[in-house]
Amino acid sequence: MLGGTPISILITGVAGFIGCNLAEVLLNRGNTVFGVDNLCRGRLDNLSGLSDNPHFSFSTVEMTNLTEYQEVFAAFHAREPITEVWHLAANSDIPAGVYNANVDLQDTFMTTFNTLEVMKELGVKVLAFASSSAIYGDLGEQLLVENIGPLLPISNYGAMKLASEAAISAAAENNLHRAFIFRFPNVIGIPATHGVMLDFVRKLKKTPDNLDVLGNGTQQKGYLHAEDLIDAMLFIREHSEEKRSVFNIGAGDEGVTVRYIAEEIVQATSTGASISYGEGDKGWVGDVPRFSYSVDKLKALGWAPRLGSQDAVRKAIRQIVAQEAAKQ
Amino acid sequence: MLGGTPISILITGVAGFIGCNLAEVLLNRGNTVFGVDNLCRGRLDNLSGLSDNPHFSFSTVEMTNLTEYQEVFAAFHAREPITEVWHLAANSDIPAGVYNANVDLQDTFMTTFNTLEVMKELGVKVLAFASSSAIYGDLGEQLLVENIGPLLPISNYGAMKLASEAAISAAAENNLHRAFIFRFPNVIGIPATHGVMLDFVRKLKKTPDNLDVLGNGTQQKGYLHAEDLIDAMLFIREHSEEKRSVFNIGAGDEGVTVRYIAEEIVQATSTGASISYGEGDKGWVGDVPRFSYSVDKLKALGWAPRLGSQDAVRKAIRQIVAQEAAKQ
Repeated sequence: MLGGTPISILITGVAGFIGCNLAEVLLNRGNTVFGVDNLCRGRLDNLSGLSDNPHFSFSTVEMTNLTEYQEVFAAFHAREPITEVWHLAANSDIPAGVYNANVDLQDTFMTTFNTLEVMKELGVKVLAFASSSAIYGDLGEQLLVENIGPLLPISNYGAMKLASEAAISAAAENNLHRAFIFRFPNVIGIPATHGVMLDFVRKLKKTPDNLDVLGNGTQQKGYLHAEDLIDAMLFIREHSEEKRSVFNIGAGDEGVTVRYIAEEIVQATSTGASISYGEGDKGWVGDVPRFSYSVDKLKALGWAPRLGSQDAVRKAIRQIVAQEAAKQ
Repeated sequence: MLGGTPISILITGVAGFIGCNLAEVLLNRGNTVFGVDNLCRGRLDNLSGLSDNPHFSFSTVEMTNLTEYQEVFAAFHAREPITEVWHLAANSDIPAGVYNANVDLQDTFMTTFNTLEVMKELGVKVLAFASSSAIYGDLGEQLLVENIGPLLPISNYGAMKLASEAAISAAAENNLHRAFIFRFPNVIGIPATHGVMLDFVRKLKKTPDNLDVLGNGTQQKGYLHAEDLIDAMLFIREHSEEKRSVFNIGAGDEGVTVRYIAEEIVQATSTGASISYGEGDKGWVGDVPRFSYSVDKLKALGWAPRLGSQDAVRKAIRQIVAQEAAKQ
């Protein structure tokens, strides 16, 4: 499979942060990768390192347009039969979806729904899906394990990820042979397109004397580096036997606070900036302040991350600072 | 509220099986009821007993058309401010959704999504939603309690009910004050439009000598009479304090087998028909064979059904036989 006999894989959202990194790893393992993206949030730049690879093809597709999506998918499939889809396309701007539910409906849910429709039509039987810890909502102090409920997301982003899981699960009863549902933690690395680290680095560029932090800085989260995330997904793909494989992915540690991130960024940029904090432990409506996210199921399968939250944050900060410096 | 000061309520799917019964109860308690339905599966006949009531108004609406839905809702709201919505509209034909996912997408999920959009626009803050035990999928021998996971529905019907729950939950973080999510069991009574009892009664009408049963008859389910279901929903509405009130509703007993239903129907119709069974314990793709459904949370709130599964089945059979006889 992904490490053995090469196969052909379609990646949706391939020009996004995770998509382009995943494509690179899958190509390095000898597979053929077909990529689609509507380039709404993804960027062609992210694919510049892959464009010379003869085993990589890309097409700009508006996946919410079923006809357009079907045509492109079928054309790829005719060139080399696609045996699985890694569906990463989604709205990644959580606040945008809070104010306009249609953003997540279209970009997160309808892209999933249409992916299932096209896969059914073309007989492609394996789907891997980028879900999110946001599907758990705010369960207070409870440990977030895969078998907890009720699932009451507090953002449209989380809601449409859960809706996608549900549709995929139903398809696994019908036409899909295997479904992999990866519940992502906060993933960091480059190319960074959003998130607290990029925000801070950019804020410091504008006002090098002071970093203004939304919230009081005590908000604590676990972070996983993109390289570890991809490693975990491929590990699950190769080792899990369940028809519907649902896994939390994460570093499995206590995480770090916003304050830690702010201080590390001030240090990495050598600005000597002061840091000012707001009030409350929520950054915005729909943001879950703090939770403890169990990755025991993944550990039991035999996987462990190379970097814990602290190291992942430090590595990502170095990468993001370099990324932003290169733009100057 | 529903038993005290009269309010104005919008019921979606009002011309369906549960909708028309709910409207009657809410009107009897002195409330104003505005009803909408696309009359795709609901029938105007079901509202004939309410049409003379000055506190009841009905409009045919295709809720998947947001503009049309908004106009009708706003017109009702201008007549008398609507303070809550009971959203029952959905595809109720589970097998139809297995073969065409678009049916549940539109009639079950998009009706919910659009209801949330209109409520947000008009500032209506309380939503009660008819969800389903189908959101649990096939969790094997596990007791289905509200805090179990992962939620992996095996039908598009269940998937789009879960998707609706998710969207409602996110809206409760944003613009809704209260959300009531009722997970329905198998509900029986009249007007019957689908389901195993109606199927059997109609089969016997065609072939009075023999009743041909899909599956081996060992499939066992709990059943709740519609009168008890409505009583439970109103009880939860009045007594639950949670912002997002998620409740399994059911009789809380072992249920009855398909064989029991077949035998009771043969007896009730005095046909003396023989009964022949198929193979396997699943009736169709997407049908969950057997589960035990916990209603302990609802019991703890103080509610108990008047009829257990056996009595509910016997009462519903009498009602359905009479309903079908009246059509001759």
